[in-house]
Formats: sequence, C-alpha cells, structure tokens
Amino acid sequence: MRTFECDYTEGVHPTILKALSETNMVQMSGYGFDPYTVSAAEKIKAVCNAPDATVTFLVGGTQTNMIVLDLLLAPYEGVLSPKTGHINVHEAGAIEFTGHKVLALRENDGVLDADALEAYLTTFYADATHEHMVRPGAVYLTHPTEYGTLYTKAQLSRIRALCDRYDMKLYVDGARLGYALGCPENDLTLSDLADLCDAFSIGGTKLGLLCGEAVVFPKEAPKMLLSQVKRHGGLLAKGRVLGVQFDAVFTDGLYEKIGKEAIRHAKRIQKILLQKGYALAWNSPTNQQFIILSDAEAEKLRAFVGFDLWGRADEGHWIARFTSSWSTTDADVDELENTLPETAALMQS
Amino acid sequence: MRTFECDYTEGVHPTILKALSETNMVQMSGYGFDPYTVSAAEKIKAVCNAPDATVTFLVGGTQTNMIVLDLLLAPYEGVLSPKTGHINVHEAGAIEFTGHKVLALRENDGVLDADALEAYLTTFYADATHEHMVRPGAVYLTHPTEYGTLYTKAQLSRIRALCDRYDMKLYVDGARLGYALGCPENDLTLSDLADLCDAFSIGGTKLGLLCGEAVVFPKEAPKMLLSQVKRHGGLLAKGRVLGVQFDAVFTDGLYEKIGKEAIRHAKRIQKILLQKGYALAWNSPTNQQFIILSDAEAEKLRAFVGFDLWGRADEGHWIARFTSSWSTTDADVDELENTLPETAALMQS
Amino acid sequence: MRTFECDYTEGVHPTILKALSETNMVQMSGYGFDPYTVSAAEKIKAVCNAPDATVTFLVGGTQTNMIVLDLLLAPYEGVLSPKTGHINVHEAGAIEFTGHKVLALRENDGVLDADALEAYLTTFYADATHEHMVRPGAVYLTHPTEYGTLYTKAQLSRIRALCDRYDMKLYVDGARLGYALGCPENDLTLSDLADLCDAFSIGGTKLGLLCGEAVVFPKEAPKMLLSQVKRHGGLLAKGRVLGVQFDAVFTDGLYEKIGKEAIRHAKRIQKILLQKGYALAWNSPTNQQFIILSDAEAEKLRAFVGFDLWGRADEGHWIARFTSSWSTTDADVDELENTLPETAALMQS
Amino acid sequence: MRTFECDYTEGVHPTILKALSETNMVQMSGYGFDPYTVSAAEKIKAVCNAPDATVTFLVGGTQTNMIVLDLLLAPYEGVLSPKTGHINVHEAGAIEFTGHKVLALRENDGVLDADALEAYLTTFYADATHEHMVRPGAVYLTHPTEYGTLYTKAQLSRIRALCDRYDMKLYVDGARLGYALGCPENDLTLSDLADLCDAFSIGGTKLGLLCGEAVVFPKEAPKMLLSQVKRHGGLLAKGRVLGVQFDAVFTDGLYEKIGKEAIRHAKRIQKILLQKGYALAWNSPTNQQFIILSDAEAEKLRAFVGFDLWGRADEGHWIARFTSSWSTTDADVDELENTLPETAALMQS
Repeated sequence: MRTFECDYTEGVHPTILKALSETNMVQMSGYGFDPYTVSAAEKIKAVCNAPDATVTFLVGGTQTNMIVLDLLLAPYEGVLSPKTGHINVHEAGAIEFTGHKVLALRENDGVLDADALEAYLTTFYADATHEHMVRPGAVYLTHPTEYGTLYTKAQLSRIRALCDRYDMKLYVDGARLGYALGCPENDLTLSDLADLCDAFSIGGTKLGLLCGEAVVFPKEAPKMLLSQVKRHGGLLAKGRVLGVQFDAVFTDGLYEKIGKEAIRHAKRIQKILLQKGYALAWNSPTNQQFIILSDAEAEKLRAFVGFDLWGRADEGHWIARFTSSWSTTDADVDELENTLPETAALMQS
Repeated sequence: MRTFECDYTEGVHPTILKALSETNMVQMSGYGFDPYTVSAAEKIKAVCNAPDATVTFLVGGTQTNMIVLDLLLAPYEGVLSPKTGHINVHEAGAIEFTGHKVLALRENDGVLDADALEAYLTTFYADATHEHMVRPGAVYLTHPTEYGTLYTKAQLSRIRALCDRYDMKLYVDGARLGYALGCPENDLTLSDLADLCDAFSIGGTKLGLLCGEAVVFPKEAPKMLLSQVKRHGGLLAKGRVLGVQFDAVFTDGLYEKIGKEAIRHAKRIQKILLQKGYALAWNSPTNQQFIILSDAEAEKLRAFVGFDLWGRADEGHWIARFTSSWSTTDADVDELENTLPETAALMQS
Repeated sequence: MRTFECDYTEGVHPTILKALSETNMVQMSGYGFDPYTVSAAEKIKAVCNAPDATVTFLVGGTQTNMIVLDLLLAPYEGVLSPKTGHINVHEAGAIEFTGHKVLALRENDGVLDADALEAYLTTFYADATHEHMVRPGAVYLTHPTEYGTLYTKAQLSRIRALCDRYDMKLYVDGARLGYALGCPENDLTLSDLADLCDAFSIGGTKLGLLCGEAVVFPKEAPKMLLSQVKRHGGLLAKGRVLGVQFDAVFTDGLYEKIGKEAIRHAKRIQKILLQKGYALAWNSPTNQQFIILSDAEAEKLRAFVGFDLWGRADEGHWIARFTSSWSTTDADVDELENTLPETAALMQS
Repeated sequence: MRTFECDYTEGVHPTILKALSETNMVQMSGYGFDPYTVSAAEKIKAVCNAPDATVTFLVGGTQTNMIVLDLLLAPYEGVLSPKTGHINVHEAGAIEFTGHKVLALRENDGVLDADALEAYLTTFYADATHEHMVRPGAVYLTHPTEYGTLYTKAQLSRIRALCDRYDMKLYVDGARLGYALGCPENDLTLSDLADLCDAFSIGGTKLGLLCGEAVVFPKEAPKMLLSQVKRHGGLLAKGRVLGVQFDAVFTDGLYEKIGKEAIRHAKRIQKILLQKGYALAWNSPTNQQFIILSDAEAEKLRAFVGFDLWGRADEGHWIARFTSSWSTTDADVDELENTLPETAALMQS
C-alpha cells in the first residue's frame, strides 16, 4: 500500500511532466527571462487579482522563507513568528544565518495568537530601552499552519491591522497553500492574501511540482530582485524549470483542482480514522491529519500502513500524521479503509 | 543625593585613573602587545589558577558576548540561554548578527533552569529530524544574573556535566562578576569558573573601569584570536587603555575589594528598603536590589531618590532597581537611609 | 537555426527525462535519503576512484560555490581566486554574503597564475602584520575556466603543493567539468581531482540536467552536512529530483559521452569560425569558442546566427561566444557551416 | 630617544586627561545620553558648518568603517575602494563580515584614481549582466590616505559627482583627518567634507584620545542608529568616555592645534631625512614620512632610532615610516636631528 507519510513522496503531476517534456528541446533564455516564466507570473497575478504584483520563483521552502524575509526586513529587524513556525523550528537557523532574530510568540494549534502579538508589541514599545532590543519588522505565519490548521480572514485582517499600526511587513508562507484553498472551511482567497500581505508564497513542491515556490509581492517590488536572489544562491540558470511547471499548474485551474481533490481524500481519511476508533490530536481541516497513538500502537500500526511519527505527544505517546496529496487516489484511500485495523483490534494483531 | 540608578554612572576608580595618568606618556606598542596588557593577563591567570589560559581584553559587554560566542560556536550552531539572558533580550540582535540562533530556556529569577536544559537536550536528540533544527553548541549564562541572583557551584557543575554529555561549550558572562565574588552567598571562585567554563568574562565597565571586559579561555585558545577580534571590530589600537586598567584593578586585590565594598553597601540598602516597608521583587544577594512599586508610588519616590524603573511587574506596578557600585560610599547610603520615606508615608508626601 | 548562445538553453537530456518519467510515481523518502540519490553518490565515488568520499547534490552553481566554500573555510578566512573567477565577478556577492573575502589574483586567459599565487603567499606570511589581513584559507578555481581554458595536471599539482605548504583547502568548481573531461587536451581525470582537491563539483545544469551540481568531498566529510546545506537554503525536499538525474547521467558513461560529443562539435565550430576568417580571442579547447568582432560585425552577424556578446574586448570590439552543448547535433553545426558568412562578406551583407 | 614608529604609542593628550579627571565622579546617563556627548556633537556640527548633521561616537577605526559602511549600504551592495584602502587590506575582513564586497580600484600613492573609478562604473552599467555582479553602493576613501597623501577639493568633488550620477554614497575615513586639516597643502575643510560626503569620520585615537572616532552624517541620519551600533557591538555603556574626550578636543580649537603642531614637526622630520641623504618613497605632506632603505640600512638604522618597517619596496628594500603625532615635541625632533646618521655614514657605523 502507498504510504501516507507526507505530501512529497512522489515526483511531479502528470500534466506538469507533460509540459516539461513538450517544451524540453525549445531553446529559451536563462534566469527566468523565458516566456513560460513570464506567462506563469502573469497567470498568478491574474488569479490573485493583483495586476501590480511582482512574482518570482524559487526552488525550495526554506530558501523562500530565508530570501523573502531578508528582503522584507531591514538588516537590524527581527521577525515575529508563532513558536511552532517553520522558520523558528525546522529551518536549521536559516533566518539567523541572514542576521535576523526570530521572535517567537504563543500559538494555538499552530495559529499565531493575535492577543499575544498585540501584547508583545504594546509591551515592547512601552519599554524605554526598546532600542536595545530587536525591532520587530515583520510577522511570519503559515497558511495552513504546521498543524494543518487555518487562519480566518478576520484573524489575518486583525494581524494586518497590527502590522500597519506598528510599521511591520506581513509575510504568509504558503508551502501548502493549495491545500488551504481547496478546503471548504477556508475563507481566505488568493486575492485576500494579495490585499493583506506584503509577500506570500504559493507552494509548488508539496502540490505536485518537482520543486518550486512562487513568491508574490503584491505591493512593492524588492529592489534588485534578481541580484538579491542570486546573492542568496537562489537563482536558477534554467529558470524555465520553474516557469514551465508553474505555468502548467496555473493553467485551467489545475492548482485549484489538486488542492480540492486532496482535501476530499483528507476528509475521507479523517472519517476512516475516527470510525476505526483513533483519536485526533486536534482537528485539522486540511491535507494533514494528526492522531494520538501509544508507543505500542505506533509500533503495531506500522505493519499495516505508512505514516509519519510527527512528534511526541507526551512520554508514552506519539502524534502520528496521515497526509493526502496531489498524488492520492480513491484507490489509495479505499485500501486504507480496508487495511487499517480498528484500535480495539490493533493490539491483538 | 547621588542616584542609585545603575553601576556605570561615574567614570573610573581613582586608583585606575592614577595608573592611566602615570603611564600616560610612556610609549608602548599597540594592539595589546604592551607590557601592561601582558602583565594584566598574567595576573588574571594567576588569580584564576589557570596557568594555561588565554586572556584577552575587549571594550564592552555586548561586544564581548558577540565575539566570544562567535568564536566558541561552529557557524551553524546556536546558543542555549535563559529566556531573560542579556544576549536574548538586550543586545539588539548582536548574536543573530553573527549568524547564531539564541535558543531560549525557562529560568527562575534569571537562573537557567537545569531541568529545562536537560529536558531540551533529551528531546532534541530524540527527535529524528533534529538535523533540520539548530544544533545547540554552547550554554550561555550570567553570574550574577540580570536579576542579581547567583548560580551555586553545584548548579554550574551540573550544567557543565550536561555540556560534556552533549558536546557543548559553557560560557559565563561576568559583566558584574566582581559583585558575585564579593558576596558571602557566592560559592563560585574564579578558579572554579576556570575549571568549569570554556570561556568567561570578568567585567570591568561596571566594576570601576572606564570600559573593558577581560575574557578568559581557560582551556583552548581560539585560533587567530587577534585577527578574529579585529574582524568583529573589537581590536583597540591603543590596547594599553585596557591593559593598564586591568593591570591596576588586579593589583593588590583591588577587584576583590571593590566587589566586597559594593556588596556591603547593597546589604545595607536592602535592609533599609525592607525597614521602610518596601517589598522585594525577589531576593537578590548582589549589588542590584529590586522592589515592587505601584505606579503612583514610583512617581512619588522619584522626588526623593534616583533609581531605575527596571521593568513592569504587572499592569499598575513597576519593578524598581537600586544599585550599589564601586563608587558608592557610606555617606551615600546614610543619605538614602535618612531621605527614603517609609512606604506608609510615601503616598501622603 | 538554433542559437549557440550558451549551454543551458534547452531542458534535459532525453535519457535523463526518461529516468525522471519512469520513477515519477514511485514513493521515496525526502531530503536525499531515496535510493536513487544513494546510488548516484556510489556511482560518482566509483568513477572518481574515491571510496571514502562524501558526495552530495545541490541545485545551482552559485549556491554550490557559496555552500562549499563556507563549509571549507573557517569563518575568518578568505578564498584566493583568479581575478576572473566566477565567485569574484558573477555571483552577486554570494561569497561575501557568507562573510568571506575573495582575494583576487592574476590569471592568464582564466587560468590562475601559480607564480602570482606563490608570490602572494610568500609576501603575506613575510608581513609582520598579516594577522590584520584576511588569512587565505582556500584556493578556488574552475576547470574548465570561464575562458574555456584548462589546467594541466602539473599546474593543479603545483597549486595543491602550495595549499599543503600554507595549510589551505583546494576547491575546483566544475560547473562545466564534463566538457573538460571530454577534451583530448585535458589530462585531469576525476580520479586526479579526487586526489588533489578537498572538494570539487561536477556540473549537471550545463551538461544536460534540468538543474543540479554534484559535490565531492574526497577526504574529509563536512560536519553536519545536511544541517549546513539546509541553513544555506540548499536542501531539496524532493532530493530525488537530483538523485534520479545524477544516477541516470552516471549510468553507462552518459556523462562522459555528453562531454565528448559536445567537444567534437566545438572543434568543428572552431574550425568553421577560422575557415570563415574570424579571429579567436584566445584558444579555448572546450565547448565555448570566443572570437573578436567589431561592433558593426557583431550587429551584422546577429542576423545570421544566435551567439553571446560575452564581453567587451576594447572600445569598438566585442568578444563573442559560440557554445556547443549536450543538445548540439551534427545538423546544427552543418547549418552553422552553411549559414555563417565569411568575414570578408559579412560587412557587404 | 622616543620612537617615531606610529602615532598611537602614547596615551592621551594632557588637556583631555584633565577633562576626564575633572568629570570623573559626576554621575551621568549611559549610552551617549550624557551632556558631554551631546555637547561634543554640537561642537562638531558647528565646526563642520552642518547644523542638520547627526554625530555619533565609536571606539575604533575598523569598527567605525564596518559600522558606517554597513549602515550606508544596502545589504547587497559593495563598496568601491582604492586597492590600498584600509578596508581592503588591513581590517581582517570586517567589511566582508557584514556581507559586503570591497571592490578594489587602481590608486596613485594611495589616492583613488578617479579615471579608474569612472571607467569601472561606465563598464559596469554597460554590461548587460551587471545584475549578476555586486552593485557598487558607495565609495570609500581615506583622507589623508594610508600613504599620507591628500585628496584635493577638486578630486573629491569629481568623485562626489560620480556618486551622484551612479546613485552611490561617499564615505571618507578620517582616522588621521586632523593631520590633513593641519597641513598647508590641504584644501579640504570640515565644512567641505560635510558638503561632499554622506558620512565621514574624525579620528580621535591617532589625534590624542585614548580611543574614539566621531562619525558625522551630514545629510541623512541612519535609521535606528543606537540599535544598529549596539547590534554591531559598538555601543559603550559609559558613552561619556568618548563624549568627554571629544568635547575637550573640540574646545578652543585643540583638534586643529594638535594637527598643525604635528605637521610642523613632520615637515622638519622630512627635511632632516632629506638633508641626511635618505630617499623619500613618495612625497607625503602629512604626519607620516616614508623613506626607502636597503635591508642592511634598515638593520643598522634601528640602533639609532625607532621607526616602522612599513612594507617591502622590492626584494632587498624596505619602505620605512617616521611618524609625528600629537605627542611629538621640538626636543624629540632635535634629538632625531642630532642622532640620525647620514646615509653615507650609516653603513660604516
């Protein structure tokens, strides 16, 4: 049976592979000046309803966060992030590598606590010695979050208002953005993100590309963008690799379809997990589903199906993750339904 | 009346000023190759009982923390610090400027919680994805802490043992070290610090020098030390300025005397504060004394005496700081005793 | 007619595309732990005759130079490079971004002048104040060079000897390495590079991959390699993208064949250029051929064939580049032969 | 006899020492908020005829160059410097430490060749790929230069015009500025520097202070100046140390007098050297005088007088430096005149 470990275990969506194959021997300029990259940027601007935006393409998620934040922030500024934010935990210090402090704040199932944000800012500016501290220059958040949870438009608008009040940029890391957009619970459109953010990324790697993240700067284009990307080691000679892929995935609503389909599968997976007696760690509306397993259960369950031991819940228990993706099929989920033992039966197996 | 705001409101201890004056027109080599700098280093090695140590002199406290940690850490490593540690809060991001993440841990009145440290390390290395996270390469702590509190030799030894187990360096920031050494409650000698640490600083600025921190590397000398210090902007052309001052303050036990005297004054100040009815924010055995004042009390009290509004206790209350130093006299404390109103009387004044 | 502008105007070699397609729906672990990446590394170790080597895969050339040098150098060290070296001119400051100075030396048609190197080192260490200067910690060079020229084994051995004498690392940037290996004039094998270098790269992007550079550390593996690569933004979630491609190109001698074929075409191109009366800017034995054109000639010639205006020769003249690559066919060169006007006829056209 | 090795072999000018002593026990605020620092800044603004300038004080020369350039430049920009510029040679990579490339240009006896500067900029912007290269964001020069030579107002004005044309900042490192200002050949006033520069430093360390450089930003104040200085490790707790010294040296024209007196001595030294038959390496109008000595002569001469072996002229010859300073007396120069052997007699001695 296929593993449900994560959403980047396969290569590339067949439609995108076809686009790569068909354009393969066409000669094109390098460094993103090819027509496919230009077209992809135009399609993204259209779907974001942001005609004045600047769109660029980078290879990976950590690289994207590192570069975008380094371009948004003044050298001496730090970035506010939920404590569980990818940049604060799982990027091997890439943000600090570029000289910026990550200022970690309280969160709830991965969602930045806007009260904690407001309290931090009020306290910071009330402190007479705040020039000895790191000025918060941006807010970073992920949508969906590392916990698969979502911001509402109201929450993001409140954070935007705080950014305006305290002269900060807002950056949304959308490494799995397609899985939020495909979700009935989600009320944040690409157009909303373009309205509310100074920058956001549209993840490709986890949505069926070989690699690639699109970055949208809806308002102000960073100065010397190509030069800055190259300085960070992020410029591809064959920019077409990203351009052709993003052009294909933003044609005929493919990005949207991929997200919707994966969410349909995720809802079934959640239902199956619950029916079989597994306890959700928390309620994730998106493509990652999290359950609690005892160490012994986790050990047993691995014989039946591939999943991710995502983290420790407490001593004796794991949080396990089941993920749907662009590559999940109905047959995969059917097989899961047939194979997955009920919790009651698991320890007898 | 003199202010008790902080311990760097005056210039330089008269004995040190005399040394500067007397050596003023002697021609000496630059960059720390003068005989006074050499002598100061020897005296410090002797008092630390560390004949193989390397001792160098830097100008300021933040500079010292930035340089020492950047030299101790591999480029990709971070430093564990109590959440309230100076490097985590009050150095404007100088550690991140050099590319290192500060990994903040729970503390108790400024003292790093060794249980939290151990739990962090156990969890970190149990996580299969820890190479995606920042490797903790050193532990940073201050003695005395930002709260005026002290580590015991037992506590520091336990932290050292954890450093050994997890291949980390231990660095003690001693910006106010003399005020710990002069304290009856303190059981950590310079010799103990040389035994337990990979590096520690001996603060001069707050102990009566114009400026200057001595740094002791008891075991391994950093490679290319002069070059690295210069690269960080920390090398003085007239190294003598630091050499002469540290040579003087480590002659005839002056450093020790300064610490002891200031602590004697601090104990009296604490007693006076308590007698007059003020509530300690916590019990600091060293030269900084912290009390709780309501906003109204703080406002009133400023008419009587100079102190520092150190931080907020909660909405409506300040933590106020009274500091003794190398420059405090018996007459200063007598005047405080005579002038300070009792809490009961304060709001009627 | 196809352009001869550069060697990355097409996508991916058909054999590699086939490998990507055939493995596309196979589920694999991320971050380079998939079997194809492991296999590719083994094949490269074998062909380099370096069983103890560490091999890793990165996305682009500037990223590779930035990461490899930052891992080889101590933070305070700089890197010696020919003045025309890619890191010194065309990487938008990526080396300085990681804190290292590029120390530029005299070169001859792109080849580092070993006399200049030796003189630099002798002078440097004879200078009593050299600790105020940047310690040279590595030598960087490209093979073939930016001018398409080659190092001999004797030259590289001499540079290695200097590295040994002065405690420096040697890194060879092989962005176009396949085109050197395919060249009859070349006497440096992969095995020689493994003997002589501390690190070298084997370029993929310009040899028919979508993207990707292999990096070989023949002797000492860098500490915490995955973590360091991620910290620089260089870690791919779908490491398979690089693994499958390099596994394919190092199967059945494909890398070697690609290089040889392109060189065969380049020799014909050179011959055609000379026969038609064009003057070589210098003699390049590899896949890039450089000629001198007056501004008027350059303008005229663009109507006949695509080439690169590589740089200015002097006021009034260009250096123009014609490049063969993995994608060049006999038919392409035939067409060039038929189309390219003789210099005498060019200005009448 | 006193050595003429360099201009920082003594401590502090007696008038400044007096000021430090007299203010020593006055309690003042830290971090540059004391009245002496404020007064010093006002006096400097007045003497520079720059009422809108921002003036700040740093400890050392390398620190000053590192901080000022990092504040003037965008993160991705480099700085143009004469090849012999202090930042390019003798700062252990401090500029690259902050991420900026030093772009070295041809010079004549230390003076940036404005033709080379113009040619560089013209070529740079004519290159279609210049976004792959480091954008020149500032010009750095020293006045007087490392060779003791001077820029004319016409030269500096031409460089300013190029800065305007190519959107660059101009920074003059005045580590020895007082010795230029005291020179009859100099036609650049402090007021001219304020007109022409975006920032310049007024050196204290070499002009009789214990340590300290004043930095003037005549036009635009850097954002978050205190915070940025602290982030670079440059903020002094006892800012008074710099404030009192600069206040004293800018009182009653002391800075000017120090410069003039030292130049008077330097002119005599030059005359003595020439009369005794020594050959100038080049003509320096300021406080550093450079002569050529054979290795044997250098060895002999050291028995008579202290000087600096500044660098190699060629194999077999040194460039030797004799320096006057704020501490040089007529008696010192008389003694030099009496003691220095004639070249003819030197090898017989």
